[in-house]
Amino acid sequence: MTLNLKNFLNPKVKASKMGEFQELQPIDGLEVSAISADLYGDGRDDICLFYFQEGANFAAVYTTSRVTSASINWNLKIKRHFVKALMVNTQNANTFTGIKGAQGLKEVAQSLAKNLTLKSSQSDKGTSDIVKITDLLFASTGVIGEDFPHIKIKNRIPDLVKKLRVEQNKFVWFKVASSIMTTDTKPKLAYEECKIGNKLIKISGIAKGSGMIAPNMATMLSFIFTDANIPSIFLKAILKKVMTTTFNAITVDGDTSTNDMVAIFSTGKAKNSKIYNVLDPKLIDFEKALHRLCLNLAKQIVSDGEGAKKFITINIIGARSASMAKNVAFSVANSPLFKTAIAGEDPNWGRIVMAVGKSGENIVSNKIKVKIGNHLVAEQNMASKDYKEQEVKEYMKWGSIEIEIDLGLGSASFSVYTCDFTKEYVEINADYRN
Amino acid sequence: MTLNLKNFLNPKVKASKMGEFQELQPIDGLEVSAISADLYGDGRDDICLFYFQEGANFAAVYTTSRVTSASINWNLKIKRHFVKALMVNTQNANTFTGIKGAQGLKEVAQSLAKNLTLKSSQSDKGTSDIVKITDLLFASTGVIGEDFPHIKIKNRIPDLVKKLRVEQNKFVWFKVASSIMTTDTKPKLAYEECKIGNKLIKISGIAKGSGMIAPNMATMLSFIFTDANIPSIFLKAILKKVMTTTFNAITVDGDTSTNDMVAIFSTGKAKNSKIYNVLDPKLIDFEKALHRLCLNLAKQIVSDGEGAKKFITINIIGARSASMAKNVAFSVANSPLFKTAIAGEDPNWGRIVMAVGKSGENIVSNKIKVKIGNHLVAEQNMASKDYKEQEVKEYMKWGSIEIEIDLGLGSASFSVYTCDFTKEYVEINADYRN
Repeated sequence: MTLNLKNFLNPKVKASKMGEFQELQPIDGLEVSAISADLYGDGRDDICLFYFQEGANFAAVYTTSRVTSASINWNLKIKRHFVKALMVNTQNANTFTGIKGAQGLKEVAQSLAKNLTLKSSQSDKGTSDIVKITDLLFASTGVIGEDFPHIKIKNRIPDLVKKLRVEQNKFVWFKVASSIMTTDTKPKLAYEECKIGNKLIKISGIAKGSGMIAPNMATMLSFIFTDANIPSIFLKAILKKVMTTTFNAITVDGDTSTNDMVAIFSTGKAKNSKIYNVLDPKLIDFEKALHRLCLNLAKQIVSDGEGAKKFITINIIGARSASMAKNVAFSVANSPLFKTAIAGEDPNWGRIVMAVGKSGENIVSNKIKVKIGNHLVAEQNMASKDYKEQEVKEYMKWGSIEIEIDLGLGSASFSVYTCDFTKEYVEINADYRN
Repeated sequence: MTLNLKNFLNPKVKASKMGEFQELQPIDGLEVSAISADLYGDGRDDICLFYFQEGANFAAVYTTSRVTSASINWNLKIKRHFVKALMVNTQNANTFTGIKGAQGLKEVAQSLAKNLTLKSSQSDKGTSDIVKITDLLFASTGVIGEDFPHIKIKNRIPDLVKKLRVEQNKFVWFKVASSIMTTDTKPKLAYEECKIGNKLIKISGIAKGSGMIAPNMATMLSFIFTDANIPSIFLKAILKKVMTTTFNAITVDGDTSTNDMVAIFSTGKAKNSKIYNVLDPKLIDFEKALHRLCLNLAKQIVSDGEGAKKFITINIIGARSASMAKNVAFSVANSPLFKTAIAGEDPNWGRIVMAVGKSGENIVSNKIKVKIGNHLVAEQNMASKDYKEQEVKEYMKWGSIEIEIDLGLGSASFSVYTCDFTKEYVEINADYRN
């Protein structure tokens, strides 16, 4: 099957080659669609819908910001752990849009519930199912403080529902992942399989996010779908654990968005045996697969950081605690002086020790050892004896840079993924709205 | 008197016009000199000396980083509150230079003590005074992790001491302030007068700092000299209080340096009546004058932030506590997305509420009111009814931008000063060492 990508894709995506991306598999129990409500004025896809015919268990983690989108507020009010659909719009964050923004979202929800109920009544099964607005989740990403375009969106809901499709082949996933992009230059997709008992489990995930990616979930959306049968409460526990070292271990600029959301939905269609305990060994394989998938998506987000040219891994080892390792790692990863040095391909390791020093952690200066790639550059409070700047300069030209900082104090570690800070970042963000 | 500025100034300074700067007055009891040790290889002034013939009371505040310069470590070891001289070098931070860096500094100190003792024995008074190395303070600023050039510096000490001069006219202060610059494009100078009792008190101060200016003293040096007679312990209390709303209320990029130092020296030559109590009402006028002087220098540092084109004032009002106000102010001031929007002259107030939301403080979203200049742009969780983007866009073209954020929760306030984040910042820092 071929689709005419030209009509519905974000124009930026056209340069992407399908071959670069992992092929996602359809998830039984899920239907998806993505169309344009012309929010950008260029006809690109900007709304998408995930519909679970028989509902899905779910768990979600939201931004820690105190200023949140109407969509986040909506989701937080839903106390249930079983939903029928998730709808996403880009271009408008529906944040700081007042009562009008909340009211507009409610109208969208009412229209969506009505159209999904109608669809359900027309299904082959003949079992009519009433979809309520409390069965629905929402996510928005885009500019803050501009009127939420609820009429434009509402007008397109019948078509959005009509276009739902069960067969999510690689093109469909590519289309859906492209529809949630903002400043991203590429869609983000990942797929994993595992076993729960003797059942094959599929996990398909998409994400978006470019600038404002920071710890605690910054303008980042990620939606993960699995056919596993796992109670919501265990999904939540596993998601939270996995996020610590994946989505919460990345940063682009240290800013945190008002709209972030990572959610996982399980349709149960794989019919694995029931799980009664989060420590059930049957879940170990699933947790590992979910970790691989989230780390993959998180790294794709960082690689596509606004203006980013280099992917940076910062490994802190020898810390007294994981929390100490994490704080030091983020102190380095969020330092503009460190990030600009990497952009300049300058092995200015002095900025690494500067950033370690300012972390607020109880560092012992002469115990720090700094490695850039395999090159030991500093130890015992000075440049390493074997340090050859020219060699490290060569290494700095690579697209992926690995920094290891041994604090020499204990055995805890933490890794953070980030990107460099380029002139293009400033360019993108100085005139984002123009 | 005219000096041949060409020979001793940082080449960047030549473009500065003397008329832009406040005229500093000589401080009785102080001698100064600045010369070149050719650390930059272009003959610019890079070492300077402040000598107090009869000693001076002093108070200093240092970086909070756990990785500190050998000069900071030296000063911290001096337990006394009375010193004879301060020497400053640029180009090399003497940080992460190991035992060799500390040993090199000691050799510099020994040479300086010897030369100052010699000078003292040759003075008109005929009273020979032995200067010990523990009478000396040091400050360094420059690249981290490169060998401290102690031999080059030591060789120039006889000349540095020989060139000490009592008459610090405006040219001399300009020369000295220029000698401590690194990425600064202008020297920073400020002068204030006040009265203690019936005595006129003079305060002359200089500063440097450009990138890495953050709360808690980032690569910033400031040296303040007064002829007042104030015990060191009271100087410390006043300096710390004044710094809260001056040097500790500015930020360029949120990074913190390993070398920062703000110090005040009082020679006592104004012969004001003795102060026995820090709450002595005679000190009120002095504290105000010192506050004006520090705020002036702090603003000069921000205005000269690396690549900065706009000066930004962020006033937080209506906070529950000063600490809440300060955290919110810095959350905005350090947000790369906010700073790039200002560089782009984009009244994207959504990024202001984003940065308020991520501060970690217990904000109530619908109580926030945001003003850009005199324009109320957002309140009650949405754009203000009177908001006219075109008007605010015009305002954004100004060189100095004022943002007021009313949190609507209490009566505490705090102001922070910062600058925009431009492509030039990245340029300067990507190839700082080349």
